[in-house]
Amino acid sequence: MAFWNLNSLELEAFRPGINSRAELGEQLIMAYMEIAAGEEDSGHLHPYDQCGVVMAGRIEMFIGSERKLLSPSQTYFIPAGEPHGWKTFDEPATLLDISSRQPGA
Amino acid sequence: MAFWNLNSLELEAFRPGINSRAELGEQLIMAYMEIAAGEEDSGHLHPYDQCGVVMAGRIEMFIGSERKLLSPSQTYFIPAGEPHGWKTFDEPATLLDISSRQPGA
Repeated sequence: MAFWNLNSLELEAFRPGINSRAELGEQLIMAYMEIAAGEEDSGHLHPYDQCGVVMAGRIEMFIGSERKLLSPSQTYFIPAGEPHGWKTFDEPATLLDISSRQPGA
Repeated sequence: MAFWNLNSLELEAFRPGINSRAELGEQLIMAYMEIAAGEEDSGHLHPYDQCGVVMAGRIEMFIGSERKLLSPSQTYFIPAGEPHGWKTFDEPATLLDISSRQPGA
């Protein structure tokens, strides 16, 4: 679908604590994600770039040695291979997240 | 830079009518763009995916045969090779725009 309205987009269960909707292109994956309060990814890395913007709520992220509490209109850019993770607090956070597709994925 | 605050990000002249700031990764280019009122790109295409979200203002876009007036929290996804263009009206529009880097670019 060419256009989404994030205010009315229907999401599906992606994994526990995360609902999402994704659009897959040849090279990009665009995903809208709603992460529940009190969730955490303590850290991982992958060989492709990832970036995005917080649309609602708050989420703490770390990328390499940088750590920041992000609010709406704040963006993140995770270079390929860089360790990163995130944590939500007392409210859900919604993100528009874009990844480069892994070769062969 | 790992994190941007779009409300205070300093932009640079990109081309007439567009100020922007870009982050280049290995596979992704993330750009924040402010397009002036009354600007138009009547259409073009390229061999890589592009997507993004409107953060402020309004912009009309077409992607293939679909045309839509986009407001904040509305997204677009332009598959590789699909003709697309845009037009602003009486106010500037700001976008967070993500492209896959062209091989060799």
